[in-house]
Amino acid sequence: MLPFAIVSLLVTVSQGCSRHSGAPDTAVESSYGSLWPLPQKVRFSSLSLKIRGSSFQIRDADESSAGPSCSLLKNAYRRYYEYMFPNERTKGHTNGFADPAELSQLLVWITSSDSECDGYPVVTSDESYELSVNQTYAVLKAPKVWGALRGLETFSQLLHEDEYGAKNINLTEISDFPRFQHRGVLLDTSRHFLPIKVILANLEAMAMNKFNVFHWHIVDDPSFPYLSRTFPQLSQMGAYHPYTHVYTPADVRMIIEFARLRGIRVVPEFDTPGHTQSWGKGQKDLLTPCYSGPTPSGTFGPVNPILNTTYDFMNLLFKEISAVFPDPYVHLGGDEVDFECWKSNPDITKFMEQHSFGEDYSKLESFYIQKLLDIVTSTQKGYMIWQEVYDNGVKLKPDTLIHVWKGTQQQYQNEMAKITLSGYKTFLSTPWYLNRISYGQDWTSLYRADPHNFTGTDDQKKLVIGGEACMWGEYVDSTNLMPRMWPRASAVGERLWSAKDVTDVNDAYSRLAKHRCRMVERGIQAQSLFSSFCRHEYKGI
Amino acid sequence: MLPFAIVSLLVTVSQGCSRHSGAPDTAVESSYGSLWPLPQKVRFSSLSLKIRGSSFQIRDADESSAGPSCSLLKNAYRRYYEYMFPNERTKGHTNGFADPAELSQLLVWITSSDSECDGYPVVTSDESYELSVNQTYAVLKAPKVWGALRGLETFSQLLHEDEYGAKNINLTEISDFPRFQHRGVLLDTSRHFLPIKVILANLEAMAMNKFNVFHWHIVDDPSFPYLSRTFPQLSQMGAYHPYTHVYTPADVRMIIEFARLRGIRVVPEFDTPGHTQSWGKGQKDLLTPCYSGPTPSGTFGPVNPILNTTYDFMNLLFKEISAVFPDPYVHLGGDEVDFECWKSNPDITKFMEQHSFGEDYSKLESFYIQKLLDIVTSTQKGYMIWQEVYDNGVKLKPDTLIHVWKGTQQQYQNEMAKITLSGYKTFLSTPWYLNRISYGQDWTSLYRADPHNFTGTDDQKKLVIGGEACMWGEYVDSTNLMPRMWPRASAVGERLWSAKDVTDVNDAYSRLAKHRCRMVERGIQAQSLFSSFCRHEYKGI
Repeated sequence: MLPFAIVSLLVTVSQGCSRHSGAPDTAVESSYGSLWPLPQKVRFSSLSLKIRGSSFQIRDADESSAGPSCSLLKNAYRRYYEYMFPNERTKGHTNGFADPAELSQLLVWITSSDSECDGYPVVTSDESYELSVNQTYAVLKAPKVWGALRGLETFSQLLHEDEYGAKNINLTEISDFPRFQHRGVLLDTSRHFLPIKVILANLEAMAMNKFNVFHWHIVDDPSFPYLSRTFPQLSQMGAYHPYTHVYTPADVRMIIEFARLRGIRVVPEFDTPGHTQSWGKGQKDLLTPCYSGPTPSGTFGPVNPILNTTYDFMNLLFKEISAVFPDPYVHLGGDEVDFECWKSNPDITKFMEQHSFGEDYSKLESFYIQKLLDIVTSTQKGYMIWQEVYDNGVKLKPDTLIHVWKGTQQQYQNEMAKITLSGYKTFLSTPWYLNRISYGQDWTSLYRADPHNFTGTDDQKKLVIGGEACMWGEYVDSTNLMPRMWPRASAVGERLWSAKDVTDVNDAYSRLAKHRCRMVERGIQAQSLFSSFCRHEYKGI
Repeated sequence: MLPFAIVSLLVTVSQGCSRHSGAPDTAVESSYGSLWPLPQKVRFSSLSLKIRGSSFQIRDADESSAGPSCSLLKNAYRRYYEYMFPNERTKGHTNGFADPAELSQLLVWITSSDSECDGYPVVTSDESYELSVNQTYAVLKAPKVWGALRGLETFSQLLHEDEYGAKNINLTEISDFPRFQHRGVLLDTSRHFLPIKVILANLEAMAMNKFNVFHWHIVDDPSFPYLSRTFPQLSQMGAYHPYTHVYTPADVRMIIEFARLRGIRVVPEFDTPGHTQSWGKGQKDLLTPCYSGPTPSGTFGPVNPILNTTYDFMNLLFKEISAVFPDPYVHLGGDEVDFECWKSNPDITKFMEQHSFGEDYSKLESFYIQKLLDIVTSTQKGYMIWQEVYDNGVKLKPDTLIHVWKGTQQQYQNEMAKITLSGYKTFLSTPWYLNRISYGQDWTSLYRADPHNFTGTDDQKKLVIGGEACMWGEYVDSTNLMPRMWPRASAVGERLWSAKDVTDVNDAYSRLAKHRCRMVERGIQAQSLFSSFCRHEYKGI
């Protein structure tokens, strides 16, 4: 069928040569071009085809289960067409004659009967795809739309320009799927409010790096920007400003839909019983009054776990949250509970005695968390929690996801071994606190961390569902979020998507430098890895 | 004359209580509002006046030596009017009746007969001013336009809003002048090319922080973006790209004029004999050929100091530079010369023998530098050099400025003591390498450094002309320059402008947090100091 045969020009280049110290060798040129994260299997031909913006088409294959009504794909076709041909102004048409040296279309074929086009991505969503660039046309096959989104990103990364600026693409065979199901980025909108535009830009960059979870740490001590329909006074009193620094229900819906169109889940975190100072401003009696000797000091501690009203409040709030956020999981926090205020309060002391908790305030914390978990379970949601909840021995549902964030490398590896040995699923953030910055190419240490590097059986390793890059907000707001996040988070993105043996830092440097310039060309304010230039420098200032 | 008397409401608040460890106390409220850098003398009244954008005027005092033809001031009036009243749309007019509770105008009075309106700022320029906000009008008196520019910035910082959003200003008396004459920011446009827009935005931010020197480290090893009219092949071959990544003569003129209008000098650095790899691409025989045993290795070292053609080239190049850049000083670099290549080259070895330099290659370096200094002297320019040139014992003109950048605190303090003891002028950058980043509030350590903190006499201290915040470009380009620079450079700005005893980090935090939000409102992508919010968050993304 093809006008001339592809005679075994396809080569497979092997990964695995890793370099565990020092900065990358910037002179290495990857044989994988600008692919990021690296797909599981790639075969390139040295034969390249021309590709013309004015006539190139992305369209549904006739056999595809996702038809013209699938907005998700239509939006993706437009997005990737614009990424690939940003300056294209002439109207698309074909002259009817197929030039054998030109790629004229990409056919997108959703192969399973349910494309999931109108659904939400979940932790078990199938993101696999197969991409074949043949002469005159290319085919992207995926069981679900989620895989098609990943494959479109990959396809767009295959384009390269010759010295005349003409777009080219090599004959290519790619078979790809993620190594881990849970590949997240955490944003903190409490320590600094992040304008919607920044959150959306970050979601765009996440899609370019095949991330699939936006962990929205939406509220915390400093501010409560979530506008609750049930308890509007929470943001009215607890946000930095009740109008300009809140996320309205419409904002939240828009962010969720924008994420869905990119195959990204939105998992909200409502962290309790600690990290709730801002909650207390709008909800009377929610927080524990701290005492100074025999009298209340006027300050407040964690959520008050001894009042029935606390649980009535949580019940209503989490009912709302479960309706607003479609994801089957909610992150419940549970980290860093300070016991000093509880210790100072005579009513708490009495309650501790009544329940025979002794002096062990982690038992009181567990008492609270247990009741909260029951409330959330009643909303049909699963939950994620920070590792302390597990460490404190709270009874957890078998499908609980335990988020590891503490300690040294040795400590977090021990923690993951312990969690998986007890049969729980877990995901890792300790090595990926991107808010912690240092001079130089710190992306290499992010890149070298691996959630499977702990002592355990294969069955234990299977319980590791992935990881999250966290950008806590003490020193991060809309002025510096994007360059601080990208391309550093990209290193985490490849670790979580690509095969375990993709660890060559020199090869990674070569691809990532090109990938970051591509992000810049797409309008993402991604900073540079080292002295170098992009064809189009960032001019968004 | 005033409708009612100001009865001793004026208070002087003293600075000096410093806190030398830990993070600042974010709960402290400065009695100096948002003033940054803090003026030398401030007296506030608690009495405040209203100020209306629709009728407020900034205009020349009748007695001023700078009249309607002074574009520099006219541009500054517009700029500060727009900063103060960004949303003002109604046309200015007064109803003829002076409201005693309203400030209606700011009179700007240049008191010396030569306003210097059409000149360039130089190291000895007078930047002092006196600002008096009285009822119904305010007066800004300055000997030269440079002081008026500083005073306009200060005046704009006095405005504050009441709870209804109305602008107010307190009765105020300010007498101000800089502690140091040389207050610089270094940008590196070689390791990454910085688009003109970024350089201009940085100049705007510099003016907001009363910096007065843009040290333009324009070329270096990685690229040569300066388009030389005499040697166009230098950028043609040595820039990252010969059209998109160069500064044309028109660009350079525009940057110099934009800086001049803000009272900022542009001091170019053409660093030799090291840091010149990119020069060699467009200028044959300029660099030393390195040898591998008896044959040239194909690589090149520093500028070749033994050829007459080298000095012919430098003579022509620095003639051009002296004409293009109006500042009386040029920075000649002279740092980090690697001797290995010189050692490998047999012609250099022979030359060393002929000149009885023995094995001491710093003598060869000095030989080169000496000839270069003579060339630059012949162009009527003074020079700045990095400290190595002084350390190596090169004979220097008495007006040479020695730029200290190396070592620990102890080492740079010893260096400054030594330099000033030998009668040379110096300025400091060691503690202010802003490209070096770390987690948390590192502005406090920038703030605590002081160029006068070394053991020496008063006469020695007088030889310290200031300092520079340096942003080297290995990891910095247009995506992250501005948030990485600001407000961290602001800490250096206050150290170099304000009195030596202005060292209270808590008071500084309070003012700087407000100052950075003001920069954000003026369109500067200045990052935050800590968990907090600005009324108008940065939305430039």
